[in-house]
Amino acid sequence: MIKIGIVGGTGYTGVELLRILARHPKVEITIVTSRTDTGKRIDEVYPNLQGLYELVFTLPTIKSLKQCDLVFFATPNGIAMTMVSALLNHGIKVIDLSADFRLQDVAVWEKWYGMPHACVDLIQYSVYGLVEMNRELIKKASLIACPGCYPTAVQLGLLPLMEAGLIDSTAIIADVKSGVSGAGRKAALPTLMSETGESFKAYNVDGHRHLPEIKQGLASMTTNSAINLTFVPHLIPMIRGIHATLYLQTDIELAEIQSLYEQRYANEIFVKVLAQQTAPDTRNVRGSNNCQIGLFKPQGENTLVILSVIDNLVKGAAGQAVQAMNLIYAFDENLGLETIALYP
Amino acid sequence: MIKIGIVGGTGYTGVELLRILARHPKVEITIVTSRTDTGKRIDEVYPNLQGLYELVFTLPTIKSLKQCDLVFFATPNGIAMTMVSALLNHGIKVIDLSADFRLQDVAVWEKWYGMPHACVDLIQYSVYGLVEMNRELIKKASLIACPGCYPTAVQLGLLPLMEAGLIDSTAIIADVKSGVSGAGRKAALPTLMSETGESFKAYNVDGHRHLPEIKQGLASMTTNSAINLTFVPHLIPMIRGIHATLYLQTDIELAEIQSLYEQRYANEIFVKVLAQQTAPDTRNVRGSNNCQIGLFKPQGENTLVILSVIDNLVKGAAGQAVQAMNLIYAFDENLGLETIALYP
Amino acid sequence: MIKIGIVGGTGYTGVELLRILARHPKVEITIVTSRTDTGKRIDEVYPNLQGLYELVFTLPTIKSLKQCDLVFFATPNGIAMTMVSALLNHGIKVIDLSADFRLQDVAVWEKWYGMPHACVDLIQYSVYGLVEMNRELIKKASLIACPGCYPTAVQLGLLPLMEAGLIDSTAIIADVKSGVSGAGRKAALPTLMSETGESFKAYNVDGHRHLPEIKQGLASMTTNSAINLTFVPHLIPMIRGIHATLYLQTDIELAEIQSLYEQRYANEIFVKVLAQQTAPDTRNVRGSNNCQIGLFKPQGENTLVILSVIDNLVKGAAGQAVQAMNLIYAFDENLGLETIALYP
Amino acid sequence: MIKIGIVGGTGYTGVELLRILARHPKVEITIVTSRTDTGKRIDEVYPNLQGLYELVFTLPTIKSLKQCDLVFFATPNGIAMTMVSALLNHGIKVIDLSADFRLQDVAVWEKWYGMPHACVDLIQYSVYGLVEMNRELIKKASLIACPGCYPTAVQLGLLPLMEAGLIDSTAIIADVKSGVSGAGRKAALPTLMSETGESFKAYNVDGHRHLPEIKQGLASMTTNSAINLTFVPHLIPMIRGIHATLYLQTDIELAEIQSLYEQRYANEIFVKVLAQQTAPDTRNVRGSNNCQIGLFKPQGENTLVILSVIDNLVKGAAGQAVQAMNLIYAFDENLGLETIALYP
Repeated sequence: MIKIGIVGGTGYTGVELLRILARHPKVEITIVTSRTDTGKRIDEVYPNLQGLYELVFTLPTIKSLKQCDLVFFATPNGIAMTMVSALLNHGIKVIDLSADFRLQDVAVWEKWYGMPHACVDLIQYSVYGLVEMNRELIKKASLIACPGCYPTAVQLGLLPLMEAGLIDSTAIIADVKSGVSGAGRKAALPTLMSETGESFKAYNVDGHRHLPEIKQGLASMTTNSAINLTFVPHLIPMIRGIHATLYLQTDIELAEIQSLYEQRYANEIFVKVLAQQTAPDTRNVRGSNNCQIGLFKPQGENTLVILSVIDNLVKGAAGQAVQAMNLIYAFDENLGLETIALYP
Repeated sequence: MIKIGIVGGTGYTGVELLRILARHPKVEITIVTSRTDTGKRIDEVYPNLQGLYELVFTLPTIKSLKQCDLVFFATPNGIAMTMVSALLNHGIKVIDLSADFRLQDVAVWEKWYGMPHACVDLIQYSVYGLVEMNRELIKKASLIACPGCYPTAVQLGLLPLMEAGLIDSTAIIADVKSGVSGAGRKAALPTLMSETGESFKAYNVDGHRHLPEIKQGLASMTTNSAINLTFVPHLIPMIRGIHATLYLQTDIELAEIQSLYEQRYANEIFVKVLAQQTAPDTRNVRGSNNCQIGLFKPQGENTLVILSVIDNLVKGAAGQAVQAMNLIYAFDENLGLETIALYP
Repeated sequence: MIKIGIVGGTGYTGVELLRILARHPKVEITIVTSRTDTGKRIDEVYPNLQGLYELVFTLPTIKSLKQCDLVFFATPNGIAMTMVSALLNHGIKVIDLSADFRLQDVAVWEKWYGMPHACVDLIQYSVYGLVEMNRELIKKASLIACPGCYPTAVQLGLLPLMEAGLIDSTAIIADVKSGVSGAGRKAALPTLMSETGESFKAYNVDGHRHLPEIKQGLASMTTNSAINLTFVPHLIPMIRGIHATLYLQTDIELAEIQSLYEQRYANEIFVKVLAQQTAPDTRNVRGSNNCQIGLFKPQGENTLVILSVIDNLVKGAAGQAVQAMNLIYAFDENLGLETIALYP
Repeated sequence: MIKIGIVGGTGYTGVELLRILARHPKVEITIVTSRTDTGKRIDEVYPNLQGLYELVFTLPTIKSLKQCDLVFFATPNGIAMTMVSALLNHGIKVIDLSADFRLQDVAVWEKWYGMPHACVDLIQYSVYGLVEMNRELIKKASLIACPGCYPTAVQLGLLPLMEAGLIDSTAIIADVKSGVSGAGRKAALPTLMSETGESFKAYNVDGHRHLPEIKQGLASMTTNSAINLTFVPHLIPMIRGIHATLYLQTDIELAEIQSLYEQRYANEIFVKVLAQQTAPDTRNVRGSNNCQIGLFKPQGENTLVILSVIDNLVKGAAGQAVQAMNLIYAFDENLGLETIALYP
């Protein structure tokens, strides 16, 4: 059994790791830390986990984390970068669900995250954990930077086209919508039910931290020139799910694009390309590690519309983190990730 | 007091007319028809109207509607076109909230609505009821074709730019999201709460009936060549509200566009242009006849992002119908339309 | 025009006062205070009020409030009791929407609210602002203690029976459910949409602050012995609305009770007794100052079931505060309170 | 592998069976019938099941069902009773999720279900499938009548007290709330999102079909005299979950009752008794087969408050049906039932 530590176990990605790993047959959760809930039993804080854990939340220390084989960071940005170096030195593998190691360009990171980076040296050794893009690198990695939720949905929606070099310099529009759990588990006025229920709005239209991450990812998929991307995030009055609506101009036939996507994802167990002109629904992936993609060219014109949906906390966070872990240890890629979305 | 008839009083636009007109000081509801609820008191079917109406739903007949000065049709498509001619012949004004007279091109109408048009002759005499576009024509009209909900949000979002001739042939992307009340009040599987709650999806991506209506409207605003528009509607897990996110390529400065919008809408009481780079929220117009618009050029690049929100049942239907009625009778334009959106 | 001050204008009851009073023809909002939003325009914080107010939030001082005729406190508990005395001394009337003056027994108040009461002397002069119970006292009052939201729904549901002395010592069960806006507008984990959406639970089962208030109110309606009441509040995954389900044992015929309620409330414009065995729906009073009541004796047995619904922020807070103000100034009781609930 | 047939695979309980059984290691779904979706692939109708089933919906015939070892009926009431006899004659076991065999008294059944019973002879041989009550009988049964959703939550909440004979003739109040999926997957006006979203109401207050079922179940648990029960169902604006709030009068100490419940359910893997005075939340059992129970005596008075929550489609339907199947075949009781509720 692989010994697992989770730093930051009381956020939504932390409890999602706990849910997924509770049914994982090859790992054992050894330590779960939380500054706010230190001393409490896990199933007291999360009654959905009753009967599954005897553990108590503890304070995060290198000393206690040393006993693990692999540590997940499900912390706010800025924490992992202060602890990763010590863990790697002890031979412990790290999968970071925060943004600390997502951007290769330190200056860009510091601009968007508003703080100095505390661990610049390790950035180049980190592997971006989008399995469908980086499977081989991930298998050998010691430090995985798990993608953000929006970037996961957008990049999976564009990957086959980008890799095939079929997107020219035309503007890509990424109109993306997310449930409110993406804002995390912290006391905050804007994500109260009274503030977000029964309403819909865009936010951070002028610039969201996931923009440079998406651009970096897309650039790495292609040899084409600079990516011209407009990314507008919106808040949906629901808890889980991301729906990316992607627009590009192309005169390639839809059938050809459909075929390209089906081939590219034929061996990916978590990416489902729907029948041509079929729209995915976020509920069909809720709780699962799946991404569902639908392709359209409305009215037969040149605008290609790509719809890509994921569960932001699973494929967009904890699920793909476990998927990466499975690769590192050569487990079946879907071990622990068999949850089927509820209908309804 | 103007005598009002409402044909189709038991749909969502019908009851919304009843709500708005209950507080209108210059009109009197004389007759409200419903095939399904004939004989029932209005406030039995709609307990929110308790104490406001003594009326009973009746069957729609020309004979009974003849006593009215103006008749609203809040019926499914295909009904108004069979009755309007007789009413106009009796000197009665008609405001049709259905789609029967929205498209000037009969062939296009018949293609998208899947039935022969029963009243072709009158189409050319109907006036498209978007007040902000057609105010003077509406004042003198006998037959108003009330715009669809999506077209209202999209056209108000683009009007100043179109009129100014500042949009070239570049593709316009209209990524639009609607609450489920847009689907109407009828037994149907796809709009059950169990089917639409906690989920988000696009629908009719390949073609929605409101596409030709939007294109016709935009074309009428400008002398430019053909409009290149991609329109993708989505369903939000909430009841009321439309949020249009519109994308265009332009190198005009945002400040200039902001100024253009503020000037164009300076005298429009129901259209509010928000401060530059401020995103509107659908809840802020819920129940009101307002449209709120926000303008952005993310990251200073050439993509202009226009956000336009309305309540689909008010400004997108019953509210603008009453606004048109107020113009016809030279009432204050906001009479009966003073509802302020609830917060929260 | 009566000059109005609102202390605590940025909570949900504060903005609800602003919404209601914006359309009130006899009052003028002179000052609105907020410690958190001092210096901001009202319609910047509340875009639903765009075009209705030019005012800016200011700091609350006796000096500035002195210019008012009447001051509403829409503050957290513990604020009004430190300022009311000074205002009354200047001849200013006060309507307190917080709990500071709701309980006549200081010891009970201090036990449930967990702080010493700072203004004990004035408690006895305050009038409990449930208009349907205390209309004549309210007309002459200088200091009104506005009822809590739960107590309003429960007391209106029981008033006719209590006044008629028809409830014996049998246990009353009050199973009451509220939307989340009752928790107020403040950053808090438990009322995040991710925490309250798509779920239902009871809370404060062992004791909620509104229990002593309900008991005091019921006791004042009757000469019977001590009230035996069990009150269990629940949280509904929605924003607005309270639904009280009240259970009592009685062998009086339902028709007789129905008649009693209809007579008692015949002249109350905001309380609607539905037809016998008709269940109210919270949406039918949302945004309005109405209370709707339905009466049942299921299966003809001795258990009487009373259903009572209100909008917690209107009839349960700001609406009944304005109703009390209207009485004080001998305005029509429903002035400013004409909002009709939206359907749907 | 046990061969399974599902009759009525396109309702919510049908698709829930498909979800649960997709991960069950000891069964094989051989046939799934649907009159409305005959000929369609399962994962075309339910995209959440993509990759899990190759099957196509077929018409229900005894001939095709004969190849099964066990058949689930997930049909509307009135279907199973016309087919069960033939299946039993072929030695096939039947688990009926509809109400056809829930009531032992035919006259009562016919009164509440409004049709003649087509299979009276078999009623006495059916076993009521509440495992926690009838485990030994279920192991040997050929025909299981799966309990209704409300009766499951209420009976599990009262079972220990009833069996211990500690409830006297005092009235029991069952104030129960359900998500809208309980109404099933069929086109209907009252369960549209526009009709049920953001609102709360009671329904069938005068009498719900589950009332006689609950009474029969409680009576079977005790030797006491007639049960005096008032049952009021309510509709919550959410999809899944039932919350029963049960009220009884008793002078037994809470600690003693808590102890009784903990002992009674100590060996039940799906019933969790929470710490004294802890309120359960429906989301903590969503998607799982768990029932969570909390016990209170508010303010130390004689009213006992029991809170019991389940997922109506799992423990209240498909989950407990699979639990019964596991017993029949002596599988581990939780096989296929390991889903953990999502948080959030």
